[in-house]
Amino acid sequence: MGAVKPARESTKATQKRLISAASEIMREEDRINITLQEVASKSGLNSALVRYHFGNKEGLMFAVLESDITNGLDMLERLLEHTDMSPIQQMRLHVSGMVESYARIPYLNRLIQVMTRDATKERVHWIATEVIHKIANGQKSILDRGVEQGLFRQVDPVSFYFTVVGAADSLYSQRFVLNSAFGLDRVDPVMHRTNVRQITDILMRGLLVTPPEGRKTRPAAQ
Amino acid sequence: MGAVKPARESTKATQKRLISAASEIMREEDRINITLQEVASKSGLNSALVRYHFGNKEGLMFAVLESDITNGLDMLERLLEHTDMSPIQQMRLHVSGMVESYARIPYLNRLIQVMTRDATKERVHWIATEVIHKIANGQKSILDRGVEQGLFRQVDPVSFYFTVVGAADSLYSQRFVLNSAFGLDRVDPVMHRTNVRQITDILMRGLLVTPPEGRKTRPAAQ
Repeated sequence: MGAVKPARESTKATQKRLISAASEIMREEDRINITLQEVASKSGLNSALVRYHFGNKEGLMFAVLESDITNGLDMLERLLEHTDMSPIQQMRLHVSGMVESYARIPYLNRLIQVMTRDATKERVHWIATEVIHKIANGQKSILDRGVEQGLFRQVDPVSFYFTVVGAADSLYSQRFVLNSAFGLDRVDPVMHRTNVRQITDILMRGLLVTPPEGRKTRPAAQ
Repeated sequence: MGAVKPARESTKATQKRLISAASEIMREEDRINITLQEVASKSGLNSALVRYHFGNKEGLMFAVLESDITNGLDMLERLLEHTDMSPIQQMRLHVSGMVESYARIPYLNRLIQVMTRDATKERVHWIATEVIHKIANGQKSILDRGVEQGLFRQVDPVSFYFTVVGAADSLYSQRFVLNSAFGLDRVDPVMHRTNVRQITDILMRGLLVTPPEGRKTRPAAQ
């Protein structure tokens, strides 16, 4: 046992290093078309290790996606367990959590998009059922409870899913637009907080039968 | 003159055919990384003509973008001239127009994103000033009028710009997600109308100080 355990840990550590390197390049350079050579150079490991551990580049990209998404999906699952929570509060937490996720992983939508186009059938199936269905079904259960309780307007859940995903991802996934057109190098923490709050407010007011009134302005600071 | 005119027309016609072919491939296959060979094959023209007319692939992509965006920008300009129109009506028309544009040109955001990263400085400048600034400034002028008239809540205009663009583009730019996770081959006309109306409603309710009340459900048909 003593001889096996360190070897396993080292395998995990190597995989993690390759995954982190790929993720970092995509995040820093705002693109998903990376090469194994770049991953090798960033991680300080041989690109042959990618083939050894993940089969090929698609395998590595899939592992990146899996690693990126786990945290957010766990949070969503825990959120949905709080059936005592108001659907309003649940949806607020879900939407702001989605924006936070894209801020951390700005390439996520593009990766999902390209993988659902190009990956093996099994991987596309996993992404559809384990990622997209979980988010879309989670959303739908909150929407249904909100409508049942007379709190939310009835909306089309598929359209709503894409609206949330698109709105949440937009500021973080268009870094070169932000830079060239708005002169901003990065989304700074103040702007990020403003964006999280504003998207959440807009979508919640869009859903609520009776939105909060009388607030013509909101203070910029938290 | 007689000898010159047909030649000019033919130049325009050739350019148009190449632009249409490139646009069609990107729309049909939901990707922007196309090759000149594919454009040649689709258009029935020689790929050398791309170099002759546009210099290189980037030149062709830029021409596609210019051609795609002209119509929408003209519409926005005309909309902004209606200073007698309520900011509510102006914003509704603007938002629904944005969704309609992305439905027609689902690759538009990706093209802008990649071009602001990779294109020549002059082209990036043109995209920033002639496309993004025009949309963002137009939006801001409607927002400002709405706030002045006590109709809109105050929102951060940069965050709002990205929210509109992201929400408007999302359903149309993720065809393989739509297919693999929701079993839908295309956005059909009914779904498109639902999406346009729902996004416009959500964003308008997000902006309005006093949103319309008492409509828990909206009929599915127009």
